[in-house]
Amino acid sequence: MYELRQRAEAAAVAVGQVLVAQGLTLATAESCTGGLIGHLVTQVSGSSGYYLGGIIAYANSVKEGLLGVSAQDLATHGAVSAPVALQMARGACAATGAEVGVAVTGIAGPLGGTATKPVGTVYIGLATPQGDEVLHRLWQSDREGNKWLTAAAALEFIIDLLSSERL
Amino acid sequence: MYELRQRAEAAAVAVGQVLVAQGLTLATAESCTGGLIGHLVTQVSGSSGYYLGGIIAYANSVKEGLLGVSAQDLATHGAVSAPVALQMARGACAATGAEVGVAVTGIAGPLGGTATKPVGTVYIGLATPQGDEVLHRLWQSDREGNKWLTAAAALEFIIDLLSSERL
Repeated sequence: MYELRQRAEAAAVAVGQVLVAQGLTLATAESCTGGLIGHLVTQVSGSSGYYLGGIIAYANSVKEGLLGVSAQDLATHGAVSAPVALQMARGACAATGAEVGVAVTGIAGPLGGTATKPVGTVYIGLATPQGDEVLHRLWQSDREGNKWLTAAAALEFIIDLLSSERL
Repeated sequence: MYELRQRAEAAAVAVGQVLVAQGLTLATAESCTGGLIGHLVTQVSGSSGYYLGGIIAYANSVKEGLLGVSAQDLATHGAVSAPVALQMARGACAATGAEVGVAVTGIAGPLGGTATKPVGTVYIGLATPQGDEVLHRLWQSDREGNKWLTAAAALEFIIDLLSSERL
């Protein structure tokens, strides 16, 4: 866990540097991480310069009401799915006015896993001015480990996409 | 830090027990803690049964737009004040439909302190079906310590008020 924490904290610092360099603001939309990404981003002094805030959308009603996620997509694809992750990311931007939105939805465990979506299943959505992308991961850790792995991956996803020509 | 983390994690477990015992749901509104309270609450397996989610209101525009905090009170009292903490707590309930709302606003440091509101100044607001209360604290730690002290105090405030006859 110590190395994973260090990795996530370093990613949060790097995210700040990339956002400042590109003059962009960030918002978060978190389900399974429950606020951990926001906590990591705001560990960095000066983060109020680029982090506007976010929504912890633990209940589906909050995903719908505050992030504008489609009730039909929640029913059809489930809360832990690529379409919902993307809508959460876009919803974070719409709700806060940020240019970049990162969203995570997954099953941290130990409860909640199914045959098709086992514990550790995570989707990470990213909305940027250049376009949107979604990432799928399947972690093999416990609840705390899965949350930290998701947070680190989400922060690294921001760095990757904003630093690349992929979009 | 280790003992403080243990204390905060234990408080998150106890908050869950009190909420389940009383059949209440919880929402969070976090400024200076940036999501740490939500992270701690969702470290507890089964927290989706009572935690609906919350708003990380780092920018004042998010305090106004998503939590309904009065722009005039932000200008008159400042973001770090008792009226704003209370409005954030009530706003968390209104935005999510939760019965209990806990909110924190403060200056984690090292930047942002003033003569009247030094680094470590924190207001914790709590909205419950029985009424609302606000707590003022002045921590003497660094940024990380001030965030963890605030999160632990906010969780313990929920336990205190819901377990007492004070309201």
